[in-house]
Amino acid sequence: MAFHFEILAKDSLTQARLGKIETSHGSFTTPAFLPVGTQGTVKSLTPEELVDMGVEAILGNTYHLYLRPGHEVIGRLGGLHSFMHWEKPILTDSGGYQIFSLGDLRKISEEGVTFQSHLDGSLHFLSPERVIEIQRALGSDIAMVLDECIPHPSPYDYVKSSTRRTTRWAERCLRARHEDDPALFGIVQGGMHQDLRKESARDLIQMDFQGFAVGGVSVGEPKSVMLEILKGTLPLLPEDAPRYVMGVGTPEDILDAVRLGVDFFDCVLPTRNARNGTLFTSAGKLSIKQAQYAEDHRPIDETCSCYTCRHYSRAYLRHLYMAKEILSSRLNTIHNLFYYMVFMKEIRGAIQRGGLLDFYTKHPSHPGRLDTEQTVQSPPA
Amino acid sequence: MAFHFEILAKDSLTQARLGKIETSHGSFTTPAFLPVGTQGTVKSLTPEELVDMGVEAILGNTYHLYLRPGHEVIGRLGGLHSFMHWEKPILTDSGGYQIFSLGDLRKISEEGVTFQSHLDGSLHFLSPERVIEIQRALGSDIAMVLDECIPHPSPYDYVKSSTRRTTRWAERCLRARHEDDPALFGIVQGGMHQDLRKESARDLIQMDFQGFAVGGVSVGEPKSVMLEILKGTLPLLPEDAPRYVMGVGTPEDILDAVRLGVDFFDCVLPTRNARNGTLFTSAGKLSIKQAQYAEDHRPIDETCSCYTCRHYSRAYLRHLYMAKEILSSRLNTIHNLFYYMVFMKEIRGAIQRGGLLDFYTKHPSHPGRLDTEQTVQSPPA
Repeated sequence: MAFHFEILAKDSLTQARLGKIETSHGSFTTPAFLPVGTQGTVKSLTPEELVDMGVEAILGNTYHLYLRPGHEVIGRLGGLHSFMHWEKPILTDSGGYQIFSLGDLRKISEEGVTFQSHLDGSLHFLSPERVIEIQRALGSDIAMVLDECIPHPSPYDYVKSSTRRTTRWAERCLRARHEDDPALFGIVQGGMHQDLRKESARDLIQMDFQGFAVGGVSVGEPKSVMLEILKGTLPLLPEDAPRYVMGVGTPEDILDAVRLGVDFFDCVLPTRNARNGTLFTSAGKLSIKQAQYAEDHRPIDETCSCYTCRHYSRAYLRHLYMAKEILSSRLNTIHNLFYYMVFMKEIRGAIQRGGLLDFYTKHPSHPGRLDTEQTVQSPPA
Repeated sequence: MAFHFEILAKDSLTQARLGKIETSHGSFTTPAFLPVGTQGTVKSLTPEELVDMGVEAILGNTYHLYLRPGHEVIGRLGGLHSFMHWEKPILTDSGGYQIFSLGDLRKISEEGVTFQSHLDGSLHFLSPERVIEIQRALGSDIAMVLDECIPHPSPYDYVKSSTRRTTRWAERCLRARHEDDPALFGIVQGGMHQDLRKESARDLIQMDFQGFAVGGVSVGEPKSVMLEILKGTLPLLPEDAPRYVMGVGTPEDILDAVRLGVDFFDCVLPTRNARNGTLFTSAGKLSIKQAQYAEDHRPIDETCSCYTCRHYSRAYLRHLYMAKEILSSRLNTIHNLFYYMVFMKEIRGAIQRGGLLDFYTKHPSHPGRLDTEQTVQSPPA
């Protein structure tokens, strides 16, 4: 399957890179944020709405699609792109993260992982070979290897044996590939232990992967640990391969990771927050359910040009949220994803100019601004 | 407030009329179907989507908007049109239907009706004067008088006294009007009793209403009773005033009522059915949750050109429904409302040609086709 990564520009004072990933479903520019389409839909939105706001690639969840409607069904219907009417690139995860989140409902062995469906309790078995087969049926553009997602903190010895098994699984994934299969990314593990990260990266970069993810971040560790892991791991990866961090994150985390050389991200944060009424603005986060917005005629963010901000007041959005109207999720999701898309575009522009550090210090996602829920000004009396 | 009704053509063999209603928010052609925007949104859709499918006017529910966010809030924010970003005509009901549906939670007197909110149990009082004030604050284009919605069946004496009170309330509504208020429609009551219908119509048509609704239909009576009421009542109304039937209905009921001379309708049926997965097609109704559609690559209706049918398979729509995805409600609602809009357009075309009777006998909504859930053909093996 067609896959090509090109670095178009490098930032002057950070490790950030501007790049382009080409797939057989078109290309996307990096640094990129991929909205999450868990069950074959980015919740509440149509593909046209995503394209309109500048989304160039999305993520699909193998675990969810495998269970419902089933990868074979999707395969027989022509693949995930056709099924969900999305013609641009799709990255699929391996399902590992969701399976390992099941806790007592899963059991791991050298061969693979047995787990119970969260939908009906039925028993399933996924192996490295099986996740390749599933992602092939889905027809994704970028597939991920099966890895064990190690929680933080875990004992050193467990992290060591798990990381080595993940490496063996990576080899098995590569051996299970067919010629026309999706591009395949390896996942560096090793927890917070630099020696294990080094070993993991050393082994994986000798294999034939098209890109690498830094795994085991955004798994409950403090922010400082995440940054340490990224700082320690990214220099171990080949510069000419794309680097992906799964499940990240806040605008602040994304910006920090981009500075260290990460090329793309996915996260449910903007879409899930939207459905919960938490909206990103240039002045910090805003919780639309607050009574102070009941008669606020202003848009969510007066500097925003998304569909929602062009046509609807905070008062109306609060009303939709309080009345549990479906349109609430839609309008809020449009705004939050638009915010992320503009943010990524600004990051790319800053790298192009060689001025990411300057952008970083001036952006509202700078530490202390987006970390905490902020009160947005009340409307003029 | 600007209001004008014009009859553009009459059908040759039925009482159907093609017409046009002008308001200060633009005009709509009749016979028309008004989608219901209960809480300031036609559930799941944006105004742009409604306009795209040919919707020219919608209904807002006074009861719901009065309780949340409150008519005064909406008034201070510039009225319902501006609040919900809908620039075309809005009809508001009086709230009577919802209040009388509350059963034991309401108490009626000559002065008005006291009721408990379904949201928080708080006590409220609505009078004829108050519903005019509320609809003024909402800024609707067509307002309705407060009437008692009499359930079927009710004792003759109760229907008689209630109908006379509704007539007195209608007078009070008219007296409460200001010069720039919305157009106001009277509501003919009288249950299934022709003498009471006659009395109600006789009294109301002497008052200064811009149009008339036939009330007390779609309140639990058999279809044959509804048709008898319409047949008995419509000839009592002035030909040059628009006629409205609230809460109707199925395509079949609409067609029957149009034949008898009704000009417009509202009903939650297409939108509510959509959210429940029941879809209208040229071959009858289709329940998208059925297992037979799990791998059906065809659109809901191969003869339909709505957004949903142009881009999505029954298999995908079934998946979204089973996975309780928000997009399910959206795509289904788009399809069902599009079906209704095409249906109304076809009715108007048939009247223009003078051939509504011919249209009636050939349409899938002809008795026996849409009344019962039908199995749509399975996909080819």
